Amino acid sequence: MTTRTAAQRRDEARAEFESFLAECPSRDILQTITGKWTCLVLASLADGSMRYNALARHIAGISPRMLTQTLRALERDGLISREVTMAVPVEVRYSLTELGSGLLGVVLQLKTWAETHVEAVRAARTSYQE
Amino acid sequence: MTTRTAAQRRDEARAEFESFLAECPSRDILQTITGKWTCLVLASLADGSMRYNALARHIAGISPRMLTQTLRALERDGLISREVTMAVPVEVRYSLTELGSGLLGVVLQLKTWAETHVEAVRAARTSYQE
Repeated sequence: MTTRTAAQRRDEARAEFESFLAECPSRDILQTITGKWTCLVLASLADGSMRYNALARHIAGISPRMLTQTLRALERDGLISREVTMAVPVEVRYSLTELGSGLLGVVLQLKTWAETHVEAVRAARTSYQE
Repeated sequence: MTTRTAAQRRDEARAEFESFLAECPSRDILQTITGKWTCLVLASLADGSMRYNALARHIAGISPRMLTQTLRALERDGLISREVTMAVPVEVRYSLTELGSGLLGVVLQLKTWAETHVEAVRAARTSYQE
């Protein structure tokens, strides 16, 4: 009996897929999981489920069309789940799935990186313009 | 004399900026650092500098226009540097800056996540369609 560690299984799975190749299905997944709005939607759900309207308020400036589109892609890819409660008005709540929770850590690191490197990027932009 | 740890300084910087706010400059930075092409360009430079043509071959399927646009945004934001060597033909090489190297770890995690979760996302898509 061979026992493989989680890291070994991950390496095997990785060897099979390579995002540098245009036809690799992982390229398409990279498309969903990257993107500013994906990052902000997943980060919003870090502390629990949220209703559509609460999400729209929390992610200031997102258009209803973009929010709907982002939620749909994340639901399709199994990163969030959508729960509809029959009431008047109907209540729709979104929450992270187990798969989405697994990705959350990386996404929060990206968000934190952006927030902690504002000055460095600003300085770079200034010297780029000069 | 107060000595602040790197983590404390990071928390302070973070308190100042918040990507959930539309006007926050970190929102704009999140825009640059997320995105499929950004991720693949930074990951390509993980092992050292590369010429434009080598990058174009390495990231299969990227259009010249998109590659140029991505490189320009990354250079402007200080994540990569562009070095021109006077020769015939002129040689242009791109490499990660210190700032870009700091972001690389998170970017590689995203790429690995996509490559190791192809089956899980595929299963989610199948059940979503049903």
